[in-house]
Amino acid sequence: MLRIIPLGGVTEIGKNMTLVEQDGEILIIDCGLMFPEEGMLGVDIVINDFRYLIERRDQVRGIILTHGHEDHIGALPYLLRDLDAPIWGTRLTLGLVNAKLAEWGLAAHATEHTIEAGERVQIGPFAVDTMHVSHSIPDGIGLGIHTRHGTIAHTGDFKFDPTPVDGRLTDFAGFERLGNEGVLLLITDTTNVERPGYVPSERIVGQTFHEVFQRAERRVIIATFSSNIHRIQQVLDVSAAHGRKVALLGRSMASNIEIARELGYLSVPEDTLITVPEIEYLAANQVTILTTGSQGEPLSALSLMATEEHKRVRIEAGDTVIISATPIPGNEDLVHRTINHLFRQGADVVYHPLAPVHVSGHAYQDEQKMMFSLVRPRFVMPFHGERRHVAHYARIVQAMGFPSDRVIRIEPGEVLELDGESARITGRIDGGAVMVDGLGVGDVSHVVLRDRQHLSQDGILVAVITVDRTTGKVVAGPEIVSRGFVYVQESESLIEEAKQRIHRELEALQEGDTTLDWAAIKMDVRSSLSKFLYAVTGRQPMIIPIIMEA
Amino acid sequence: MLRIIPLGGVTEIGKNMTLVEQDGEILIIDCGLMFPEEGMLGVDIVINDFRYLIERRDQVRGIILTHGHEDHIGALPYLLRDLDAPIWGTRLTLGLVNAKLAEWGLAAHATEHTIEAGERVQIGPFAVDTMHVSHSIPDGIGLGIHTRHGTIAHTGDFKFDPTPVDGRLTDFAGFERLGNEGVLLLITDTTNVERPGYVPSERIVGQTFHEVFQRAERRVIIATFSSNIHRIQQVLDVSAAHGRKVALLGRSMASNIEIARELGYLSVPEDTLITVPEIEYLAANQVTILTTGSQGEPLSALSLMATEEHKRVRIEAGDTVIISATPIPGNEDLVHRTINHLFRQGADVVYHPLAPVHVSGHAYQDEQKMMFSLVRPRFVMPFHGERRHVAHYARIVQAMGFPSDRVIRIEPGEVLELDGESARITGRIDGGAVMVDGLGVGDVSHVVLRDRQHLSQDGILVAVITVDRTTGKVVAGPEIVSRGFVYVQESESLIEEAKQRIHRELEALQEGDTTLDWAAIKMDVRSSLSKFLYAVTGRQPMIIPIIMEA
Repeated sequence: MLRIIPLGGVTEIGKNMTLVEQDGEILIIDCGLMFPEEGMLGVDIVINDFRYLIERRDQVRGIILTHGHEDHIGALPYLLRDLDAPIWGTRLTLGLVNAKLAEWGLAAHATEHTIEAGERVQIGPFAVDTMHVSHSIPDGIGLGIHTRHGTIAHTGDFKFDPTPVDGRLTDFAGFERLGNEGVLLLITDTTNVERPGYVPSERIVGQTFHEVFQRAERRVIIATFSSNIHRIQQVLDVSAAHGRKVALLGRSMASNIEIARELGYLSVPEDTLITVPEIEYLAANQVTILTTGSQGEPLSALSLMATEEHKRVRIEAGDTVIISATPIPGNEDLVHRTINHLFRQGADVVYHPLAPVHVSGHAYQDEQKMMFSLVRPRFVMPFHGERRHVAHYARIVQAMGFPSDRVIRIEPGEVLELDGESARITGRIDGGAVMVDGLGVGDVSHVVLRDRQHLSQDGILVAVITVDRTTGKVVAGPEIVSRGFVYVQESESLIEEAKQRIHRELEALQEGDTTLDWAAIKMDVRSSLSKFLYAVTGRQPMIIPIIMEA
Repeated sequence: MLRIIPLGGVTEIGKNMTLVEQDGEILIIDCGLMFPEEGMLGVDIVINDFRYLIERRDQVRGIILTHGHEDHIGALPYLLRDLDAPIWGTRLTLGLVNAKLAEWGLAAHATEHTIEAGERVQIGPFAVDTMHVSHSIPDGIGLGIHTRHGTIAHTGDFKFDPTPVDGRLTDFAGFERLGNEGVLLLITDTTNVERPGYVPSERIVGQTFHEVFQRAERRVIIATFSSNIHRIQQVLDVSAAHGRKVALLGRSMASNIEIARELGYLSVPEDTLITVPEIEYLAANQVTILTTGSQGEPLSALSLMATEEHKRVRIEAGDTVIISATPIPGNEDLVHRTINHLFRQGADVVYHPLAPVHVSGHAYQDEQKMMFSLVRPRFVMPFHGERRHVAHYARIVQAMGFPSDRVIRIEPGEVLELDGESARITGRIDGGAVMVDGLGVGDVSHVVLRDRQHLSQDGILVAVITVDRTTGKVVAGPEIVSRGFVYVQESESLIEEAKQRIHRELEALQEGDTTLDWAAIKMDVRSSLSKFLYAVTGRQPMIIPIIMEA
C-alpha cells in the first residue's frame, strides 16, 4: 500500500512538506516553515511536528527539495537536529540550504546530492524524475516519483512563464512524458487557482522598470524579495542599461545575491554594484538602491527610510520608489503606511497594481488546466492552497470532464492510501503545527497564547499581600502593579480604591474565621476587583492576586 | 478669511470630520469614528480630539451629516456629551443617529433638522445646498457650502450608479449648477482613485443573487453589511421571487432593517420575513438566511456557523453561502478562514471576486473625473483617502490640465486658509486621534500600548519578595508568577532556577551592606533575570520585581 501524507500549513494543505511511504520506506518532499497565523501572538515561526518522522528515522530514505524558498526549506535545521537523512536538491536550492545550515552549525551533518533538473535520481525504493519549473526563484523542480502502485507527479511551486528571464522553460515535455506513461496521483500547486488566465511573464516587470527608469530624474529605489533572483537580474540589467550603479540594502539581499552569483544564477554587469557610502559620490540619476522591505516590515531598510529613521539613506524629493511585490495578505496596512510616508517625503512611488511591477510565482487557472492536461492523472491532490482553493480546483477539473470525487479533499496530517485503483483517507498521524518562539520549539501552548491575547487587549493587574503565617494577619500590602491596563500616573485614585477594596474584602473574610482558605480568598479578590475595574473602566485586565506568607 | 480643517483619520485625511470656519463661526461636516490601526492593541475605536470644538462651543453653528455610516456619525455621542449643537441630516441618516443617541441616553439632547436632498438649508452664516449622491447606504448627500469667499463643494461619500436600486441618481445637475456658479474648493472622496473605470451598478449584485438562487438546491445564506439597505432590498426581492422566506441573524441586521423599513427606505415583500425557529418548518429550498459577519469577525453569526458554534443555525451540506462584501484590508485572513470552514462543512461558497457579489460604494477613477469636470473648482482637496490617494488624484487631474499645485496636500488637523484667490496651510490645531478603550476616552497612552505590545509578544513575569522593614532580610518569597511567557507546568525547573538567581542576587547585595537601595536592587534583579531568561528561552518577557516591606 502507498501512503501519501501532506503536512504543513496551518491552513495551506501540504504546502511545506509531503511524505510518500511505500512498505514503510519514507521519502520526504520539502521541509519548509510557516508564518504565524492571526492570533499566534509572539510566535516567530511555525513548523511541522516531526515526531512521526523521528520515531521512524531508520525508515527515512531521503529529503528532496523542490526549490529554495523558506516555506520549502526553512524547517530543515529543526528536522536535521534529530534526523540524519540525505538531501537532494538543485544547485541553487542546496546553496541556500547550506547557507542556512552553516548558520545553525549543521553543515557537516548533511549528506547532499545535487540534482540537475531533467535527471532521474534513486532515493531508497523510489526512482524520481525531475522536471524544471518556472517560479519566483530559479532552479525549481517538479517530481515524478515512481512507486510500485504507480507514478506520483508533484508540480512543486510552478508556473509556465513563456519568456523566462533565464530562458529555461518549465519542462512541458517531462510532465507530458509522465502523463503518457500514466500518472496515479498529481499533487499540484493551487495557490492561484482563483485567478483566471495566465501569469504574465516575469519580463513584463523588466519592461516596467525600463519605462520607470526612463522618466526617473533622480535616484530609483527598488524593494523586492531577496530570493527573486530573476527580478534582481532585471534590476541590475536595467540599471546598467541606464548608466546607474546599484547599491544593496538588507542583509538577505546581499547574501542571496552573493550565493546566486557564485553559483552562476546571477550575472552582475561589470562595475555595477557599489557600496552604500559610494552613493554620495554619484549624481542622483546614476544611482539605483535595491532593498528588502517590500512587505512594509517595520524594521526593514525601506520602512526605516520611509520614516526617516534609516541611518545611512534618506529619501530625497524626486526619488522614485518601486515596490516590486504585492502585500502578503495581512501586510497591506504596513505596506500602505510605508507608501504614504514615502509620498509625504516627496518620492514618487510606483506600486502594484497601479503599474505592472510584480508578477506572481504561482500558476493561474489556465496554467492549472494545462498542467492537468499534460499529466492526466487518475487522482489529483491540490496542495499549497486552502480548502477554498481545493473547492475551486475541483470545479475547474470537473468542467474538464474529470470526476469530482477523484479530487482528494484532505487536511494536513491525514493519510491518503492508494493501491493503484482506489484512494482513501484512512486516518491521521500524530502531530500538527508546532509554534517556535525564540529558542522554544513547541513550548508555547494554547494557554500561553490565550494569556498573551488577554494581556494584549486589557493588560494585567497584580495585587500582592503578605500575611503572617501563623495569625493570617496582613503584614504587608496590598501592593498593586499594573501594565497595559491604564496610564498609571493618571489613575492613582483608581488603584487606591482597588487597594481599599482588597483591604475590606480581607477584613470581612477574616472576621470570625481563623482557618483561612487562601485559594478561595484569591478567587474572591480576583472576582471583586474584576467587577470593580470593569464598572469603572469597561476593561477586564488579567488579575493576579499573590498572597505571600511571612 | 475662510478656514477649512480636515480632521479624522489615523491615515485617511478628513474622512470622519471636516470643519468650515468663517469669521469664527464653525460648521461641522460629519462626526464619525475610526477603527484602530495596526498596533493599537485592545483599543475599541478611535475618535477625534474634540477639544478645539469644545473650547469654541459658542461658535459652533451646527453639524451636517452626509450619510449614516459609522465613520461619519459614530462619534456623535462623544461630541454631544460636551457640546450642544443642532444636527442636520437626511431622514435615514437621522433615523440611524437617533437609534444611536437613544442607546446613549442622549436623544432629548439633540436638536435635529431633516434635510430633503436638493433643498438649501441655512446653518449660521452658511447657506448649504444639498445634492443626493449614490453610495452603499441610501440617502447620502453632497454639499454646496456658500461662504463669503466662495463656494465649497463637498461630495460626501459618492459614486455615480447609473441604475441605482432605489432609482435615485446622484444629482449631476446639482453639482453642475455649483460648477456653473463657480466653486472655490472641491472636497472629494478619493477612496477608490486607484481603480480605473466606473463602479459597476449595485444591480449587478442582484443579478448575481438571481443566478445563484436559480441553481441553489438548498438554503441560501447571505452575509453582508447591515447598513447596505439596497443590498438587503435585493436579497428580499430575489428571495421573494424564488419563493424563499428570509430569516435574519445579527443584532444590527434586525435593527437597521427595522429603521429603514419604518422610514420607507426598504420595502419588505409581504410574508417574506420569518423568525429563525421558523426555518425548521420550511423546506431547505424555501429558506434564505441574511446575516452579519461578512468580515469574518470571530463572534459574528457567520463565523460561529462556520465553526459549528452557532446556537441556532448549523451549516448543512449543500447550503450555498454568499459573502456579499469584500474584506476590509486586514480582515482577509479572518474572511478566508471562514470560507475554508464553510467549504469543509460541505457548503458552496460564493465570494468576491470569483463572482460579482459585491460592488464598492466609492467612485472609481472615471467617476472622479466626471465629478471634477462637473464642479471645475479652483482648488481641490481629496478627502477619505491616504497620501497615496492624494498623489494619485493629483496625477489624474493634472492629466486633465489642472495645475498640480492647486491640489491641497494636507494632513489631519492642519488648517487650510482660503481668501478666494489663494490657499495655504497656515498651521494646525491641537489634538489628533483619541483612542477609546472600554469606558476610557483618551486614557490609553502610548505607554499603555507599548506595554500591551510587549505583553502580547513575550508575556510577563512577576517576582515578589517580602523583606523585614528593619533588618532588610527576606521573610517571604521569592514568589514568581508568569503569564504568556512559558507553559508553566512544563517550566518548573526554569522558574525554580530563576528563584535561586534572585536569592543569590539578594544575598550578594546584602553582604556587608545594611542600607539597601531597593530601587537599585529591583533594577539588578530585572536585568539579571532578563539575561538569564533570554539565554534559556530566547524570549524577553516583561519583568516586574516587587519588594514588599513587612
